[in-house]
Amino acid sequence: MKMTSPYPKKVSIFEVGARDGLQNEKPVTTQDKIILIEDLAAAGIKRIEAASFVSPKWVPQMADSADVLHGITRKTGVTYSALTPNLKGLELALDAGADEVAIFGAASESFSQKNINCSIEESIERFIPVMEQAKARNIPVRGYVSCTLGCPYEGDIAVSEVARVSELLYKMGCYEISLGDTIGVGTPLNARRMIEAVAELVPVEKLALHFHDTYGQALANILACLETGVSVIDSSVAGLGGCPYAKGASGNLATEDLVYMLHGLGIETGIDLTKLVNAGNKISQALGRPSGSKVARALSE
Amino acid sequence: MKMTSPYPKKVSIFEVGARDGLQNEKPVTTQDKIILIEDLAAAGIKRIEAASFVSPKWVPQMADSADVLHGITRKTGVTYSALTPNLKGLELALDAGADEVAIFGAASESFSQKNINCSIEESIERFIPVMEQAKARNIPVRGYVSCTLGCPYEGDIAVSEVARVSELLYKMGCYEISLGDTIGVGTPLNARRMIEAVAELVPVEKLALHFHDTYGQALANILACLETGVSVIDSSVAGLGGCPYAKGASGNLATEDLVYMLHGLGIETGIDLTKLVNAGNKISQALGRPSGSKVARALSE
Repeated sequence: MKMTSPYPKKVSIFEVGARDGLQNEKPVTTQDKIILIEDLAAAGIKRIEAASFVSPKWVPQMADSADVLHGITRKTGVTYSALTPNLKGLELALDAGADEVAIFGAASESFSQKNINCSIEESIERFIPVMEQAKARNIPVRGYVSCTLGCPYEGDIAVSEVARVSELLYKMGCYEISLGDTIGVGTPLNARRMIEAVAELVPVEKLALHFHDTYGQALANILACLETGVSVIDSSVAGLGGCPYAKGASGNLATEDLVYMLHGLGIETGIDLTKLVNAGNKISQALGRPSGSKVARALSE
Repeated sequence: MKMTSPYPKKVSIFEVGARDGLQNEKPVTTQDKIILIEDLAAAGIKRIEAASFVSPKWVPQMADSADVLHGITRKTGVTYSALTPNLKGLELALDAGADEVAIFGAASESFSQKNINCSIEESIERFIPVMEQAKARNIPVRGYVSCTLGCPYEGDIAVSEVARVSELLYKMGCYEISLGDTIGVGTPLNARRMIEAVAELVPVEKLALHFHDTYGQALANILACLETGVSVIDSSVAGLGGCPYAKGASGNLATEDLVYMLHGLGIETGIDLTKLVNAGNKISQALGRPSGSKVARALSE
């Protein structure tokens, strides 16, 4: 590692602010969401999680997801994704024009029970019809695994369990597995070891990092994991959101801070940082709160 | 780097919150400072920058430095340090009982001019009498180099210039050189390359990292640098302070977040994280603002 970079030449950012972010913030208008998503695309982001078709009873912030997907002016080459918990959600997402959908499992039995009221196995079985229907309609399905570096109820999670659940989702047909440090407790070596363990069962190019910054560790953890060859990273503009069900879970990693690091490492992202900062500042204003991105705050002084 | 750790077994934290931190915050009472310093020692920190004998005209927050040093109940094995810009400052620091002192230079000519009103060479010449007097009294002198990863006026700084200034201070007699990313603009690979360049002229075990978190990069930068063998890190409990003269410079790296990462990497610090969090929360309360440490906020929910 003396003179050459051990990192990938390019990283693909999967932007989750408009969904994983905003679902954990106070409500904003449908128009604010549409502007955010269009701004993100204009900044060069190619993969945008734009909607969720979880029941509005559980996540009222996402009740206007169909209107959002219908409302955006689409940019060529950008994928607009939606979270779909079940067949009904899938139908709504496809009717609204989602390009791809996502399903989710946990690496922690307790978290699965408390978060989605069923065991890990049951949660994955429930997604079989979603997967079948998506395949039949040629819609890519992304898989999320939560609690990969720790659980608010169980503490440490065995990497073998993370690898097992990841493999299940991959074998079911998910085209990519996003590994979530849902409560942000990981540190660089254990993050790297987790990725290495999963990469033994799922090709590393099919893995994504989804690390929360609750303990300020997300960028360092990503840096350690980039050396494994993983090159897809989830993040949230302005650090929007977190997880309402997990104690201590606040703050997705801000996309601006990630892009700043990646560009500093000489890694291409295709993203215009200035435009990204402006997009994040605009939605932060709509929320009436400061941006959760340090880069955005430093560049906006 | 597969299974064994590339990192040092132990890291020594040099805690700058009571000086570099508080001099850039609104004033607190002398008693608040004394409590902070005693709390830090009780948490296991062995090296505490406790005072500054810069003119109170320039840094009014530090005008009570002698009272602070006189007021603390000292803990055996802990070093209490003071910043000393000149001979007068040195005398005051030693009269007040400082165990060691610190001098400072910049790697940027423009920053030196704007920050201390003289050239880099002049600033270092001015420290010669301080160094001679300190040596005569057997007082260790630490050297700070600012703007090692960028300057608010000049932008990029050549690593050769950082190495040259570091070597000057080291050859003058500084026992340790603390390399400051004063405006927090560095990213991991350039941080690492800077340390490698300096380590060609100054033994790496004589180097310390002093990285600001203005752009959220400090922990990632430290992680990259730890692989060079450097094992001394400056940080500031609760993320106190910044640099008032540098545009965009806010937020030292929070010691809590650093310790959390180091412990996660299996690196010993000798620090009790819970006690450290309590110390940071107490001074944050005195300042009437939330802690700048994400770990402190997560653990205090």
